[in-house]
Amino acid sequence: MAEKLTPREKGFSEWYVDLVQKAKLADYSDVKGCMVIRPNGYAIWENMQRVLDKMFKDLGHKNAYFPLLIPESYLKKEAEHVEGFNPQLAVVTHAGGAKLEEPYVIRPTSETIINRSFAKWVQSYRDLPLLINQWANVMRWEMRTRLFLRTTEFLWQEGHTCHETEEDAEKETLQMLEVYRTFAEDYMAMPVMTGRKSESERFAGALRTYSIEAMMQDKKALQAGTSHNLGQNFAKAFETKFQGRDGREHFVWQTSWGVSTRLIGGLIMTHSDDSGLIVPPKLATNHVVIIPIAGKATDVEKAQVLAKSHALAADLRKAGLGVVVDDDESKGPGFKYFEHELVGTCVRIEIGPKDLAKDSCVMVRRDLKQKEFIPLGEAVTKAQAMLDDMQKALFQKAKDFRDSHTFEVNSYEEMKEKADAGFLLAHWNLDAKVEARIKEETGLTTRNRPFALKQEPGKCVVTGEPSPGRIVFSKAY
Amino acid sequence: MAEKLTPREKGFSEWYVDLVQKAKLADYSDVKGCMVIRPNGYAIWENMQRVLDKMFKDLGHKNAYFPLLIPESYLKKEAEHVEGFNPQLAVVTHAGGAKLEEPYVIRPTSETIINRSFAKWVQSYRDLPLLINQWANVMRWEMRTRLFLRTTEFLWQEGHTCHETEEDAEKETLQMLEVYRTFAEDYMAMPVMTGRKSESERFAGALRTYSIEAMMQDKKALQAGTSHNLGQNFAKAFETKFQGRDGREHFVWQTSWGVSTRLIGGLIMTHSDDSGLIVPPKLATNHVVIIPIAGKATDVEKAQVLAKSHALAADLRKAGLGVVVDDDESKGPGFKYFEHELVGTCVRIEIGPKDLAKDSCVMVRRDLKQKEFIPLGEAVTKAQAMLDDMQKALFQKAKDFRDSHTFEVNSYEEMKEKADAGFLLAHWNLDAKVEARIKEETGLTTRNRPFALKQEPGKCVVTGEPSPGRIVFSKAY
Ligand SMILES: [Zn+2]
Ligand SMILES: [Zn+2]
Repeated sequence: MAEKLTPREKGFSEWYVDLVQKAKLADYSDVKGCMVIRPNGYAIWENMQRVLDKMFKDLGHKNAYFPLLIPESYLKKEAEHVEGFNPQLAVVTHAGGAKLEEPYVIRPTSETIINRSFAKWVQSYRDLPLLINQWANVMRWEMRTRLFLRTTEFLWQEGHTCHETEEDAEKETLQMLEVYRTFAEDYMAMPVMTGRKSESERFAGALRTYSIEAMMQDKKALQAGTSHNLGQNFAKAFETKFQGRDGREHFVWQTSWGVSTRLIGGLIMTHSDDSGLIVPPKLATNHVVIIPIAGKATDVEKAQVLAKSHALAADLRKAGLGVVVDDDESKGPGFKYFEHELVGTCVRIEIGPKDLAKDSCVMVRRDLKQKEFIPLGEAVTKAQAMLDDMQKALFQKAKDFRDSHTFEVNSYEEMKEKADAGFLLAHWNLDAKVEARIKEETGLTTRNRPFALKQEPGKCVVTGEPSPGRIVFSKAY
Repeated sequence: MAEKLTPREKGFSEWYVDLVQKAKLADYSDVKGCMVIRPNGYAIWENMQRVLDKMFKDLGHKNAYFPLLIPESYLKKEAEHVEGFNPQLAVVTHAGGAKLEEPYVIRPTSETIINRSFAKWVQSYRDLPLLINQWANVMRWEMRTRLFLRTTEFLWQEGHTCHETEEDAEKETLQMLEVYRTFAEDYMAMPVMTGRKSESERFAGALRTYSIEAMMQDKKALQAGTSHNLGQNFAKAFETKFQGRDGREHFVWQTSWGVSTRLIGGLIMTHSDDSGLIVPPKLATNHVVIIPIAGKATDVEKAQVLAKSHALAADLRKAGLGVVVDDDESKGPGFKYFEHELVGTCVRIEIGPKDLAKDSCVMVRRDLKQKEFIPLGEAVTKAQAMLDDMQKALFQKAKDFRDSHTFEVNSYEEMKEKADAGFLLAHWNLDAKVEARIKEETGLTTRNRPFALKQEPGKCVVTGEPSPGRIVFSKAY
């Protein structure tokens, strides 16, 4: 039998890396900080893409594709942007056997090169809003990397929009944040806080940055998606202008927003257990595995079990479920249970001669691991109900966990004591130096100022100076 | 009214570039040889991806993702491979603010980096066949570029498989070639010749390369997809080995196969006309545009026309069609006809007060441009029939065109005379020097040796030496 995972209790990080590799989700490569996304992991990304892409398109966004390489000079056009991304750039200096006159950087994000096109495409207010999305790979040179969570190259989508007014841009920014919340909660079953990031955590070049933040099982925060109101910063740098209803030229108001393969890491760390991956059914490829049990059965019995297994699989597939029949005779049932728990198949069905005699089967939900005896005639309905229940239960469990690890703290002392306890709601005077000091002394960073958190004035836990309201501090990925 | 396209007669290349830009399919960027794929063009790629991805998965292939960057040393492991791709590489020499110890190249294709993973994944014959596909961007530094057809960066899929035996690998190579043929003919409505490439046109590192080749409206060939039997060349370079059924170690037998955004160029050049893009309905996003005609109508009539237009749109959508109602009152019908012909909407429906009075509408198929008066109650059925007919008619027209521009030639003299006439079936002695001479003197290259072309011995048109059978020569993109 294959080797077990490091239990979460023994080391959450070791458990995570162990799970990612043993469940064949991703692997390290020889290329510094770059991962290989294996079929089991990529299938989750494809399911995420399918759902998100539809959500974007239903709101009028269209996909396009812009060059991988960006002339170095483009990045310099927006002062904050280049300062923010410069240390992370990979630079192409030679191509086609010759030194390039101007180096290109591999896109760390595409605001600059996309604005170069937008400036040509947008002429009049009739061309607005311009609602574009790109699915792409991007590259940010990172010192410390972790599979899915922080890699030099990652896959993502980046939305880029242009609007007539600042209000329209702000509305789009918040709308897309809400799309991300819906996706995280309704599909990933991962509860998130929506809110605004602090100034120091703002995207390089944006007016305002909003995020969704989730709590992992080790009580650390994961920033799972961001939405930026870019104001007119890039429009001014690239002269993205339009003739307004008043006949005059105006700079467009812009947004950008993105989620990445990091979400896969978030999904794993939210739900999975010491036996392996747990995938919310709405994002699963394999909903059901049917395991025929035929250890000491006669040949006739074996044939009956196999026939019934494939018939049930066909019925389940008709109901829209992804089904695998694991009838490999070279492996025993125990090994198969172990393997399908590891890779996160949502429901296991066992059928043996004794079950058949009773016209019944055994069903096991991945997150509960409890056997239920179900009449075969009810197996399809039961599987569907189990998957629905599982989707809801995963969300509720994660939400209860987060809520029970969220605390108001009212002194710096208390903050230090609870530094590893989860989300800490604390007053802070908005001073970036204080924020930096807290980070250095405790490892806690501001996550966001949640919309759901009523803002009432108080006193900064560090300085005692006025605070407009509590913000969430937490250790984070 | 917008400017018309350069007619094909006046200059096929100008027409093509004109169409691509005016129909907003793609645009040049400031990055040498890189294009921006605009939403109208990207939508075609998405539709292609959807169909191909399902075809691959139905045959058991799974998607994965490998790093964009490849250590320079990897390419050098397969001698032919590095020689073939070296002149086209873009090289990353600096990253994260420092010079890299070993430069990385941006993948021109991924055989090398994928084999590095395969060597770890494959242990036993039980792990075979390993059937992987990747959707990705790749980069090959090109001197002369043309939108979609030859760009420095392009999007593609690359299949990479490992097999136990040479026979299995050859079977997979030919199976995927057949998938490409099916896709080209049944979806793109683009007839293709399947066959084997000559030695000089073989993929760098392969045993054998097969291709699908289509004829464009200017009678030039377009290589639209390739499938390679890699033999054990990469397996030996990367030690991709398995324990066989005989208990011994063997190198795997491999294939790779790919199609790219070049297909979009092929689609355009096969079907489109002087009015703009023509898209085979199976790959179209917008099947029908409904244009309410309300020039001199009363307000009541206008409201009726609009209501009927939207009701019909709803019915068409229920039938699974992509529908746009173009009710923008700031543009006249003539302008709308022009625009929808330019971007290739398959069927146009016009509804005015006079039509409504007769409970009728006008329908126009994009490729025929002839008005038909259709009872409104039959509009949905008629639209579906028109789209089916159009799909078939586009294929038949392209096939007739190709067949009527395919010739047997029996002397070098004749070959030169017919150099621009289309596909030339000629005897050749298999000597690469003769092939190179023909290319230099006539511009003709060997396309492939079609499976459908019976091989009968003859004499080389240039040297008079023995030839095993005719091969197709043509000018090509
Ligand atoms: Zn104004
Ligand atoms: Zn052997």
